[in-house]
Amino acid sequence: MSASIPTKMQAAVLHGINDLRVQEFPVPEPGPLEVLLKIHAVAICGTDPTVISKGWTGMPPYGTFIPGHEYSGEVVALGPAVSQFKVGDRVAIETHKGCGHCMNCKRGKYTICLNYGKPETGHRHYGFTTNGGYAQYAVNHISTLYKIPDNVSYDEAALVTTAACAHFALDNIGGLMGGETVAVLGPGPIGLMAVQLVKALGAHKVILTGTRDDRLEVGKKIGADVTVNIYNQDPVKVVKEETGGLGVDLVVECSGSSKAVAEAIEMAARGGRLSLVGDPHDLTTINLRRFVLDDMRAAGVRGEGNGDCARSLALFSEGKIQGKPLITHHFPLEKINEGIETFVQRKGGAIKVIIQPNQ
Amino acid sequence: MSASIPTKMQAAVLHGINDLRVQEFPVPEPGPLEVLLKIHAVAICGTDPTVISKGWTGMPPYGTFIPGHEYSGEVVALGPAVSQFKVGDRVAIETHKGCGHCMNCKRGKYTICLNYGKPETGHRHYGFTTNGGYAQYAVNHISTLYKIPDNVSYDEAALVTTAACAHFALDNIGGLMGGETVAVLGPGPIGLMAVQLVKALGAHKVILTGTRDDRLEVGKKIGADVTVNIYNQDPVKVVKEETGGLGVDLVVECSGSSKAVAEAIEMAARGGRLSLVGDPHDLTTINLRRFVLDDMRAAGVRGEGNGDCARSLALFSEGKIQGKPLITHHFPLEKINEGIETFVQRKGGAIKVIIQPNQ
Amino acid sequence: MSASIPTKMQAAVLHGINDLRVQEFPVPEPGPLEVLLKIHAVAICGTDPTVISKGWTGMPPYGTFIPGHEYSGEVVALGPAVSQFKVGDRVAIETHKGCGHCMNCKRGKYTICLNYGKPETGHRHYGFTTNGGYAQYAVNHISTLYKIPDNVSYDEAALVTTAACAHFALDNIGGLMGGETVAVLGPGPIGLMAVQLVKALGAHKVILTGTRDDRLEVGKKIGADVTVNIYNQDPVKVVKEETGGLGVDLVVECSGSSKAVAEAIEMAARGGRLSLVGDPHDLTTINLRRFVLDDMRAAGVRGEGNGDCARSLALFSEGKIQGKPLITHHFPLEKINEGIETFVQRKGGAIKVIIQPNQ
Amino acid sequence: MSASIPTKMQAAVLHGINDLRVQEFPVPEPGPLEVLLKIHAVAICGTDPTVISKGWTGMPPYGTFIPGHEYSGEVVALGPAVSQFKVGDRVAIETHKGCGHCMNCKRGKYTICLNYGKPETGHRHYGFTTNGGYAQYAVNHISTLYKIPDNVSYDEAALVTTAACAHFALDNIGGLMGGETVAVLGPGPIGLMAVQLVKALGAHKVILTGTRDDRLEVGKKIGADVTVNIYNQDPVKVVKEETGGLGVDLVVECSGSSKAVAEAIEMAARGGRLSLVGDPHDLTTINLRRFVLDDMRAAGVRGEGNGDCARSLALFSEGKIQGKPLITHHFPLEKINEGIETFVQRKGGAIKVIIQPNQ
Repeated sequence: MSASIPTKMQAAVLHGINDLRVQEFPVPEPGPLEVLLKIHAVAICGTDPTVISKGWTGMPPYGTFIPGHEYSGEVVALGPAVSQFKVGDRVAIETHKGCGHCMNCKRGKYTICLNYGKPETGHRHYGFTTNGGYAQYAVNHISTLYKIPDNVSYDEAALVTTAACAHFALDNIGGLMGGETVAVLGPGPIGLMAVQLVKALGAHKVILTGTRDDRLEVGKKIGADVTVNIYNQDPVKVVKEETGGLGVDLVVECSGSSKAVAEAIEMAARGGRLSLVGDPHDLTTINLRRFVLDDMRAAGVRGEGNGDCARSLALFSEGKIQGKPLITHHFPLEKINEGIETFVQRKGGAIKVIIQPNQ
Repeated sequence: MSASIPTKMQAAVLHGINDLRVQEFPVPEPGPLEVLLKIHAVAICGTDPTVISKGWTGMPPYGTFIPGHEYSGEVVALGPAVSQFKVGDRVAIETHKGCGHCMNCKRGKYTICLNYGKPETGHRHYGFTTNGGYAQYAVNHISTLYKIPDNVSYDEAALVTTAACAHFALDNIGGLMGGETVAVLGPGPIGLMAVQLVKALGAHKVILTGTRDDRLEVGKKIGADVTVNIYNQDPVKVVKEETGGLGVDLVVECSGSSKAVAEAIEMAARGGRLSLVGDPHDLTTINLRRFVLDDMRAAGVRGEGNGDCARSLALFSEGKIQGKPLITHHFPLEKINEGIETFVQRKGGAIKVIIQPNQ
Repeated sequence: MSASIPTKMQAAVLHGINDLRVQEFPVPEPGPLEVLLKIHAVAICGTDPTVISKGWTGMPPYGTFIPGHEYSGEVVALGPAVSQFKVGDRVAIETHKGCGHCMNCKRGKYTICLNYGKPETGHRHYGFTTNGGYAQYAVNHISTLYKIPDNVSYDEAALVTTAACAHFALDNIGGLMGGETVAVLGPGPIGLMAVQLVKALGAHKVILTGTRDDRLEVGKKIGADVTVNIYNQDPVKVVKEETGGLGVDLVVECSGSSKAVAEAIEMAARGGRLSLVGDPHDLTTINLRRFVLDDMRAAGVRGEGNGDCARSLALFSEGKIQGKPLITHHFPLEKINEGIETFVQRKGGAIKVIIQPNQ
Repeated sequence: MSASIPTKMQAAVLHGINDLRVQEFPVPEPGPLEVLLKIHAVAICGTDPTVISKGWTGMPPYGTFIPGHEYSGEVVALGPAVSQFKVGDRVAIETHKGCGHCMNCKRGKYTICLNYGKPETGHRHYGFTTNGGYAQYAVNHISTLYKIPDNVSYDEAALVTTAACAHFALDNIGGLMGGETVAVLGPGPIGLMAVQLVKALGAHKVILTGTRDDRLEVGKKIGADVTVNIYNQDPVKVVKEETGGLGVDLVVECSGSSKAVAEAIEMAARGGRLSLVGDPHDLTTINLRRFVLDDMRAAGVRGEGNGDCARSLALFSEGKIQGKPLITHHFPLEKINEGIETFVQRKGGAIKVIIQPNQ
């Protein structure tokens, strides 16, 4: 590697349950088809606190594991055989790299790679089963790199997987057609990005539901035509009223609440589609009868597959979707635990919190 | 109408809850684009006893309503403007006719017509919201007629909607690819037809689950590679073992049991598909987390849309699917209540019971 | 009908090849599920001069036939059984009404109804095989009516089929994904609408090719990122340069030129899609080898099916696509032949010419 | 490697245009995720004579290049990190291995990998841009290996890509629905396999066209309902007659003849689909107008993607498709040039010719 790359860096290393420590750590070296990145922005995702507090199947051993998977940075060194990227490239990353040769990967479903968590097969899940981006440097396979358009900042680019999850939610349910009506359930970062995305892709009326007025307010600013605080209004009733009694063509469920899933079925039109992004931790009780008799469709959404990071960066570049309204806080790497606490407890209206490891 | 058509016929008329009486009734007259059929076979479907015992939204008044929707017969008179059919044609019918002009009908989803139950719009649901086939004659719109190939009997043709429901279950979930593994849950008539159909369409390994050994035995004879009596074996475990631990590519849920739906998610592969034909009368509690994290797809299946009766008759004609192994009993129209009781109580191993109104 | 509806109207009646005469004509009466419209705007489509100069298979007899199929107006009388529309509704129409019961209609493909040109089956092609909108009044089946949002003018609404053709072009090729690159060939009205539409639906870079600088200039104003006058530049070369050598994800061919179709294959990416809207009157010679070896897809586009008029009106209402920049001329009905000449000869930069029969 | 693996083998090495020599050659060593195969059967494909007589873009240098890409054999050694296969496994191979990380590979389109012919990226096209199977041993990446079911012979397994091409032809055009009518153009090996496959997947009526009666005769034996020698009959006319005037739902074009492609459009139904497997070496002149006005779809078919080799082996295993009727000749490796001549000149009615390098 170049003389300018240090051999040691600062990184947030997980030493045990809820024990994330910023410390010195060796700068990793890129292997074949990998690059070394200098990380300029890494966003805290809702999954990160879960990884930190509960661990993750396939995670590297405590004391050696660096979490963090929503990051962007600059290519500073190339491993063997890299020709599509060069030193100096600004890139955002996606967190999943499939093995590339199992049946799911062959069929384009790399986020559900059958070799998940087996690094010897080529699979990587950066920040989960491989070291990630809570550090000054990280190594990534070129499969996970996306060039950042000049007019998109590192901060915004760090949110590309948030946008790409919303994008993938549309892919998995067969796309969105212009002029369709959409309900987005849950104004978390993915929900707020979904609101922007479906508007950018031609949705006609977008209804956002949630429990926090401040989040709903943000949703309204970035494109929701109607917002519903479910503590004050029945979201199914509002959706029906806003759609002439028909229900919406598409529901994008981003809350992970079982109640929201049950309501999703009630607010969808006959023949409506449900894209399920939220990851319900409890069992879900639903009225499947309506789903069956009304010929509905549902799709689960694992991550941000299908190369949708590229599409999302294109829309960032055009200003059709924006990361900035969701970015509420910045912290340097050494204050990462404060950043995580701010994010989890939504202090100061926190939506997305960015860590800047090299500032 | 021709002199040979009587003005009166025998029909089973519903006079109230559980009050089905065989009586004299006027022979109906076909309107524009309709024909008069002389009915040779009508099969009892599981929905019929529900209609008889509970009524149906949009049903004609008691005392005027003839149920029955799985029938076949001979065209004996043509209404105005009929050119595609002629007197003497042997035809099977499908039960749904969409209005033809609502947004769902325009998009090919006529079984979920937005004008369901409004006959003035052109919608018909024969045997439900319009008179059906428990009678010597019936009037049907040409939209619901399918010519029976010469080598298919009226009996078998009366089962065409059973087959077409299974067919539609595949359409709605995006089809079946050759060599895929499939679990069929529930060895009722649709489940048994689904077993035959997926084999006929190239499924590699088909696993049928249920609670009755005699039905599972039938399933084995007509194509199931593996059968599981869920009282004796854990169906999820068997499916995993039979698929090298991967789970099946497709589950066709035909039981309507909430437990089966929950198991369907557990036995599907990562990226697996669920086609939900069974109509669960209770709320269903499921582990949606696996559905989301494994990028699954689900589709509800309302009826036998998409013109799938035509495709199903083609397969009957080739002997690739068969109705005969499912037909266990025949009754004349005057014994229809005995026929229904035989069907409901599965007397003598009843699977499909055929009424012959003109014998 | 209401006393306020006259029995006679002015209409442009085709009396023979190139013999369109404005004359008195009986106001038609709406039948079941039909309405009578007072027409406020009818746009001249490129097909109209063809019909006028060559006739059309299934056309009503000369002396009784009123062409014109892109119109909007006000509901002034209802035929029997109409409940979804009321007198006073502002509506735009689509030109195709399928029979509703052939296999294609059942499967949602009503623009390729198998009973095309047979009115007795219920099929209508307004302005082609049934009287259309070059008149003060017209009768339309409710299947062809779309309510106009309040903020959309009759003029713009008369262009809804233009927009819906572009919409259908996307449907038929499997949709557009956000961030994709698109080439639109041919800056006619549909091409110019396609440019707007793909931008409105999230296309990243849109390249418009054509032969007339003034049209390309319009294209640039309404959203094309790059325009190519093929007399001055090689469109394939430009597309390759603008897409980093990859080619575009999607080509929407709107010119009907055989040369353009051949170029479409050359400018598409590996795995690219071609949506063919233009209707080539000559045989087309293409390099199919690239199409095969690069796993391309192509779709023909007949009309504006799939209920896409509704989606298009929704986008007009949001201002995401606009008719106004394409509307260059207005004429009263009595000057319709002048209007047609203006359109055909593109006098004064004519793009879309609107006839106003009731002004 | 094990002591039992020799260091030298016999291989057919291409030394120049039409200069294929059987000679001693080093046995290759498997790298990470690769295995060494002892080859038991390799079929001659129509592309092989082209490679031998004209070369191929990205081909290894003359004197070092071993062609041949349809082979099966036994795993005799494992490279590093191989866990899914073990020594002794019987496997068939597919010829394409994508790089696994370009945008097309990520989206499941590995046969049109954007890094085609760049081995440093991980791409392989065995027998084209990497050494293939005209040898006693070959190295293959596990991505290209498919376990052979016990009841399938090495000979039949060597035909798996032939079957998988036909399978992929269906995938790319959106699948086949039960009961559909199909025309297969060209009774070459892929066409004959396509006939079997569409029958196995539920096609109702299958019409095979060609120019050689003996091939058509084979087609009839293995499932074609109707055969047409185009020297004696107009295939479009026959197709129309056999489908009640409608045309077929699907055409699978396997001849590569431009005339056949033109006829494909004429024999397809309104809304019909064309799957183009044959690779036309000349420009193709077609009536695109019908394609556009009848809302048709077409798909190019590059190779045997989508993991379809696995599906095809499953169908071989069930006896639903068969390789045996197509295998007419066997040769030992030293007579490979005689084998190729037999194949090219169709000596003795040759269809598929198998080379057995280890007999």
